[in-house]
Amino acid sequence: VRVGQSGSAELGYAHVDLDRTRRLGLPEVVYAPGKTAAEISGIVTALLERTDGPVLVTRIAPDTADALTVSGGRHDAASRTVVWRPAVPRRAHVTVLTAGTSDGPVADEALAVGAAIGLRMQVIRDVGVAGLHRLLGHLDEIGRTDVLVVVAGMEGALASVAAGLVGCPVIAVPTSTGYGASLEGVTALLAMVSSCANGVTVVNIDSGFSAALAAHRLAAVIERGRDGDGER
Amino acid sequence: VRVGQSGSAELGYAHVDLDRTRRLGLPEVVYAPGKTAAEISGIVTALLERTDGPVLVTRIAPDTADALTVSGGRHDAASRTVVWRPAVPRRAHVTVLTAGTSDGPVADEALAVGAAIGLRMQVIRDVGVAGLHRLLGHLDEIGRTDVLVVVAGMEGALASVAAGLVGCPVIAVPTSTGYGASLEGVTALLAMVSSCANGVTVVNIDSGFSAALAAHRLAAVIERGRDGDGER
Amino acid sequence: VRVGQSGSAELGYAHVDLDRTRRLGLPEVVYAPGKTAAEISGIVTALLERTDGPVLVTRIAPDTADALTVSGGRHDAASRTVVWRPAVPRRAHVTVLTAGTSDGPVADEALAVGAAIGLRMQVIRDVGVAGLHRLLGHLDEIGRTDVLVVVAGMEGALASVAAGLVGCPVIAVPTSTGYGASLEGVTALLAMVSSCANGVTVVNIDSGFSAALAAHRLAAVIERGRDGDGER
Amino acid sequence: VRVGQSGSAELGYAHVDLDRTRRLGLPEVVYAPGKTAAEISGIVTALLERTDGPVLVTRIAPDTADALTVSGGRHDAASRTVVWRPAVPRRAHVTVLTAGTSDGPVADEALAVGAAIGLRMQVIRDVGVAGLHRLLGHLDEIGRTDVLVVVAGMEGALASVAAGLVGCPVIAVPTSTGYGASLEGVTALLAMVSSCANGVTVVNIDSGFSAALAAHRLAAVIERGRDGDGER
Amino acid sequence: VRVGQSGSAELGYAHVDLDRTRRLGLPEVVYAPGKTAAEISGIVTALLERTDGPVLVTRIAPDTADALTVSGGRHDAASRTVVWRPAVPRRAHVTVLTAGTSDGPVADEALAVGAAIGLRMQVIRDVGVAGLHRLLGHLDEIGRTDVLVVVAGMEGALASVAAGLVGCPVIAVPTSTGYGASLEGVTALLAMVSSCANGVTVVNIDSGFSAALAAHRLAAVIERGRDGDGER
Amino acid sequence: VRVGQSGSAELGYAHVDLDRTRRLGLPEVVYAPGKTAAEISGIVTALLERTDGPVLVTRIAPDTADALTVSGGRHDAASRTVVWRPAVPRRAHVTVLTAGTSDGPVADEALAVGAAIGLRMQVIRDVGVAGLHRLLGHLDEIGRTDVLVVVAGMEGALASVAAGLVGCPVIAVPTSTGYGASLEGVTALLAMVSSCANGVTVVNIDSGFSAALAAHRLAAVIERGRDGDGER
Amino acid sequence: VRVGQSGSAELGYAHVDLDRTRRLGLPEVVYAPGKTAAEISGIVTALLERTDGPVLVTRIAPDTADALTVSGGRHDAASRTVVWRPAVPRRAHVTVLTAGTSDGPVADEALAVGAAIGLRMQVIRDVGVAGLHRLLGHLDEIGRTDVLVVVAGMEGALASVAAGLVGCPVIAVPTSTGYGASLEGVTALLAMVSSCANGVTVVNIDSGFSAALAAHRLAAVIERGRDGDGER
Amino acid sequence: VRVGQSGSAELGYAHVDLDRTRRLGLPEVVYAPGKTAAEISGIVTALLERTDGPVLVTRIAPDTADALTVSGGRHDAASRTVVWRPAVPRRAHVTVLTAGTSDGPVADEALAVGAAIGLRMQVIRDVGVAGLHRLLGHLDEIGRTDVLVVVAGMEGALASVAAGLVGCPVIAVPTSTGYGASLEGVTALLAMVSSCANGVTVVNIDSGFSAALAAHRLAAVIERGRDGDGER
Repeated sequence: VRVGQSGSAELGYAHVDLDRTRRLGLPEVVYAPGKTAAEISGIVTALLERTDGPVLVTRIAPDTADALTVSGGRHDAASRTVVWRPAVPRRAHVTVLTAGTSDGPVADEALAVGAAIGLRMQVIRDVGVAGLHRLLGHLDEIGRTDVLVVVAGMEGALASVAAGLVGCPVIAVPTSTGYGASLEGVTALLAMVSSCANGVTVVNIDSGFSAALAAHRLAAVIERGRDGDGER
Repeated sequence: VRVGQSGSAELGYAHVDLDRTRRLGLPEVVYAPGKTAAEISGIVTALLERTDGPVLVTRIAPDTADALTVSGGRHDAASRTVVWRPAVPRRAHVTVLTAGTSDGPVADEALAVGAAIGLRMQVIRDVGVAGLHRLLGHLDEIGRTDVLVVVAGMEGALASVAAGLVGCPVIAVPTSTGYGASLEGVTALLAMVSSCANGVTVVNIDSGFSAALAAHRLAAVIERGRDGDGER
Repeated sequence: VRVGQSGSAELGYAHVDLDRTRRLGLPEVVYAPGKTAAEISGIVTALLERTDGPVLVTRIAPDTADALTVSGGRHDAASRTVVWRPAVPRRAHVTVLTAGTSDGPVADEALAVGAAIGLRMQVIRDVGVAGLHRLLGHLDEIGRTDVLVVVAGMEGALASVAAGLVGCPVIAVPTSTGYGASLEGVTALLAMVSSCANGVTVVNIDSGFSAALAAHRLAAVIERGRDGDGER
Repeated sequence: VRVGQSGSAELGYAHVDLDRTRRLGLPEVVYAPGKTAAEISGIVTALLERTDGPVLVTRIAPDTADALTVSGGRHDAASRTVVWRPAVPRRAHVTVLTAGTSDGPVADEALAVGAAIGLRMQVIRDVGVAGLHRLLGHLDEIGRTDVLVVVAGMEGALASVAAGLVGCPVIAVPTSTGYGASLEGVTALLAMVSSCANGVTVVNIDSGFSAALAAHRLAAVIERGRDGDGER
Repeated sequence: VRVGQSGSAELGYAHVDLDRTRRLGLPEVVYAPGKTAAEISGIVTALLERTDGPVLVTRIAPDTADALTVSGGRHDAASRTVVWRPAVPRRAHVTVLTAGTSDGPVADEALAVGAAIGLRMQVIRDVGVAGLHRLLGHLDEIGRTDVLVVVAGMEGALASVAAGLVGCPVIAVPTSTGYGASLEGVTALLAMVSSCANGVTVVNIDSGFSAALAAHRLAAVIERGRDGDGER
Repeated sequence: VRVGQSGSAELGYAHVDLDRTRRLGLPEVVYAPGKTAAEISGIVTALLERTDGPVLVTRIAPDTADALTVSGGRHDAASRTVVWRPAVPRRAHVTVLTAGTSDGPVADEALAVGAAIGLRMQVIRDVGVAGLHRLLGHLDEIGRTDVLVVVAGMEGALASVAAGLVGCPVIAVPTSTGYGASLEGVTALLAMVSSCANGVTVVNIDSGFSAALAAHRLAAVIERGRDGDGER
Repeated sequence: VRVGQSGSAELGYAHVDLDRTRRLGLPEVVYAPGKTAAEISGIVTALLERTDGPVLVTRIAPDTADALTVSGGRHDAASRTVVWRPAVPRRAHVTVLTAGTSDGPVADEALAVGAAIGLRMQVIRDVGVAGLHRLLGHLDEIGRTDVLVVVAGMEGALASVAAGLVGCPVIAVPTSTGYGASLEGVTALLAMVSSCANGVTVVNIDSGFSAALAAHRLAAVIERGRDGDGER
Repeated sequence: VRVGQSGSAELGYAHVDLDRTRRLGLPEVVYAPGKTAAEISGIVTALLERTDGPVLVTRIAPDTADALTVSGGRHDAASRTVVWRPAVPRRAHVTVLTAGTSDGPVADEALAVGAAIGLRMQVIRDVGVAGLHRLLGHLDEIGRTDVLVVVAGMEGALASVAAGLVGCPVIAVPTSTGYGASLEGVTALLAMVSSCANGVTVVNIDSGFSAALAAHRLAAVIERGRDGDGER
């Protein structure tokens, strides 16, 4: 069994996984919280030098982004990302739904990460189930997408409703939108996991990033299919 | 301040509240678990003799129901109730929705208790949000009711969807239907309390009884309105 | 099945539900947290232009309220609301009880929202069960109301006690008042849902808004009754 | 510092605390679950032989009680206790309140254990707050007791109400009575600990035993006072 | 907006969703718990008569399966399923991993449901991370699959490890295997949702069924790709 | 039944319970959080004018204390209290134990409140069970007290150990001292309620106040005993 | 990196880890729940044939043990184990403490597993902190052990007290002994993890097995030390 | 039974345990939160004057460290420690693994405390299971250590994987790294306690300190072995 070997870069403060593109089709993504601008710059440099493909930093604070010393990155404050070498658009289409305006930043993260790694992203905002006609008015659009990402807080009902309407993969992202019994997203998480709609899958609370990466996994296999390599 | 006085019957094992009709418009309802058939019979006898109006026992096991010594009661196994002196139908209409077949027994309790205390009850079963057209096909019916009771387990999304479609009072009953992350109804409870739809109210898990009694309170004030006594 | 169609205004950042008055008898209410003053102003403008009836913003911070660009609104700092076109008083009377002084802001939200949408609101403050005579001294007043809203934190016992004394609908609002085992309102929520008093209904923690909207639903059906349209 | 030494009896399966009467004024009480009839018999024999005062077994199943080989014990099935050498009545009066009939067995345990160790016990059953006049009708009685034990499940509101009415020590016993949001007594426990009434103290769920032992501690210090040994 | 209309069969006890094949590519699946053999037989009959494609009952007890009155179904006790009209094998390959022998029944449900709806299923059992070489010995196999389903209880670490090794979609199924701090699967659920591996998605505890249905959604879009209809 | 009547002062923002001395032997205590200096001053004035005995404000911030307009109060920053008319020392002795230095502020609140209401308070600090000899060195002192208050965070083991050593009433106060699994005091609360030592009673997390008030209730009945009025 | 390769036996229902002795110094231990007697027999046979050292089955029901088809095993009902080829006693001494008699079965599992794998086990039962002198009477014994295993339920205080008295490694085993707030061992788990005593380590609820295996790891390194191979 | 006596220093604000070196082989360690610089200085002075061995302060804020009045201490900001009289290196080797860069500060605390008390510490950072080859590349190093400390947040899977690879004692430290379902470290705690790998032990969330002290206990017994005093 051959596993790894020299597939990592030891930076002292980090152990960068250089083998990840081979395994997962994407370089390691840098999660900013808890890292200094210098550390992030070092990791990004290692990734730019020693891997191919998009390099991303997520959940970065504006000050930290300003203090990065690696040129060429595009900082987007809304999604809290910095991106180098964004991927060219691939064939998979991903549609992000949000239940309310407050779920916007989570959707923004999914959109920015997804675009950076080459997914064709679109968003339909503020179509929560309290005004059902807003969602139903987009049924055709939703019906054509390859992957549906549903971003919702409070009781998270939008995931069940949307999944009942379309047959494509549904990735539900619970958000911490709400108060009291919403328990900072735990209620939406439990509700989405308990969905009465078949085959809904769920990622972590407020993790637009995880939704984009799950969509990346789907896109890889969809594209493998489309390119005709079904043989094994 | 005059409160009570002689408004109770001391049976040793119970302290029957005989004043409840005056205060709440209904005699005390007997919750069977933890009481013997003899105790239930004694309480029912006291209520029949010393109050007016319907007398009910809820959550009664078949064996206990068979062992009751008070004649004239109607036992309904599906709703686990025994009823004496059911009320004549009043004017308020209550519609009960269930998300799935497994929510049936909770709805049955609401229907039986509601009917016994004079509410006009109807039920629309198995209209969960995974197949939304089932609910939408009943919109007109639902739009005409005075009170909507929504019985749902798992993620409880039906409460939000229904409350977004109609303007009448909505009483959500979370059920213990489901498994795993449903946490025996706690997830549906939290989700319903966190509903994004305005003005949803919630009662205890699996408590068709509480929903019926909440509807009774609504009916009382609706009827007071209809009878024209708005003066104060 | 006719649902919605053009009943919404797409603002990019929001998808305003213009059909809500038809369905629920009230325009959409704007929840301020997570929205900029510009976004709120845009939504309010759309609602003022394209719907009838009261337009409300809730949970608004003073700075955000000052930065709104839509004239004619009345900002109330205590209840954190801004109101345009308040409704004329309707016939339903709502009484709000609070257990303690710290529950005041939640009651204030219920009072402000209720008044804006036309409910006749009154409040009786600081009548928690540790000094029971304070509540009992108001029994007559409470007995005459159409809807009772009980606002209480800590163990939330006031809801059970009040509901045992009156026959009208009781909407319990758990608050985050308290510390330690109060679990930021979760204890009061669970306690109110578990109430031994019949037919208590519960809304989300600290949600004076939800209580007012639940009362609105009741008022609608009460008024429907009073206006004599009981036919179906 | 002198602690213990030979104050225990090693039985192999148990290490009986023979010093407890000196420290706590009572021999060790035997909790039956998880012990065989033979083990219980052995422990009881050691206690009868080597200590003075009442010897008790609690939470004993009927079959186990029948299989005990130590004569002279009085088995009470309702309270699940067996008692040898009950104490003569002491001066402290303890009043047990229950919220409902289902709380009876917990009260029975408190009553049986309290009586066995010499407390003067009385009980007032089924005076839950949903029918407040039942409790208020007993105010004088309650006002005269030395210690009030309040046994209540569901939301446990009786503890707050009773503690607001009397100035004596209040020991609240949450019970597992209820369902759903009652969380098998956890809700009542949290609610009682969060009580808005001053100075309520709480013991474990369903533990009539703990309430009796807490009352025993109070009785000891009350009696020490009454016997005039306030000097130190 | 056209939604449903006549797409359901009203059986009294159930409201069968006949439109589901159009929307989701599969008829409604019947969840047996809480339904009688007669009810299940009725629903299955309606589905067989009025829809195309596989008809399944899941979580069925042996006695209930024996009492079904619809001929032609194949009952499999290990997976607790009955299947009529299984689908012909489609092109998508799904590999199920289990962490331990006790996770077997959940995997069996995924395998049976997946096979019935036309997925090409394989399983690799008992490759938990405590003996990592067992998993690493299957790397090539795992690397070729279209979808990886990871079934694990206790701490659920297998999901993270496997997702770090392959680039295809990973559906994690937490199981209730374990005791104590495993909290009947809640720990594995939270751990899988918190996975440090990118893009893991999660379904409900013990729900082999949900994993199969999520794989079905993936298969649909993979096949759409392979069949070349990427146009939109 | 005579309850209250005019026993309260309506201040608009508060409903001061003037009857409390009669019922509980102490005026209402003012909990400062959520009240303005003006409101607190108003309530204190009402209590000073219309009741006898000590008047206390607890949990007061230094700024608020400085802004009070009622003269004669003694502010103690450590315990966050202001006291007017402290009671003369009564006969009951209360000993407060703390497990660690961080539990000090909770003990300080208990000491200040206890002293203000006339209890004879002493404290033994930092005697947690990790260095057992510290507690054992104080056994004689502890053995002579009337009431033991045990203040401990983390796992709260001191309550069980102390209660196993003395026969007087034990009031356990869990604190939020600790981190991680201490869950801000919830672990200590659950642990103390589950104590293997007999008759431990528990109050809310960090509530030195509640411990003092529980001791007040004990003191009242102890003193009643010592004064010889055991008749009933 | 060489990992595994042929170090496992594929039995269809299980994937036996044959490499474990090399890695961990012990063959895989068979956890019986969820496995048939035939499966257990197959795994045991593979282990006996293809590994050296002790072979154990844990948590086995009496019926399953009777149905095993592999000769030579010793079944012990108290500890629910079957052992083949027990190890010869090694040098490390392990002392197990239990807080109460009900913790016995968990200690029995630790004792049986420990003995089978060659640890020198002793037990001191029923020395909970409510009677502290029982533990203090064993101080010398405890002070000489290499590893201390503390088995306690309820509030689990024995772990903190014992760890404060001795300097050797302490492995705390929370048990599900207790009721109500003990939350089936979760309270003891959280309390032990929050221990104020330094360096306490914790294993899963009721897992005498895990404690023995943790002691095995300690013994391995202790013995490595004693045998003088400190070089590296 | 001789316990303690004069083995403590009473400082008023603290009760310093001077006997701890005799019992545990180390002086008391000072936990800074909740103590003033003056209090810490006083405790440190007492320990320096009246005990031997290393004196440590942990979790100290930079400002407090600057304000200490005891000379000779070495302040390390990364680990938040101040150390006087560090121990000379002993024979036991401890290896700390971290799953990610964000777990660094917890590892730093373990490293600093371990070094101060004489353990030979090394660290391997950022070897989480999402890139397994990073850990596998260090197998030989890990295989030679006496004690393995595994520091990981999110789902904590590294503990199980590492413990499956090596036979030495494993101390798992869950961290609060992560968000949403990570529940501030509770998920990692529960997952590590539920580990499928044998004999993993767990300490409190984020407690590098506890891991070092647990390693100290191991080192003591290892060294006792190596020094040949196995006799008893």
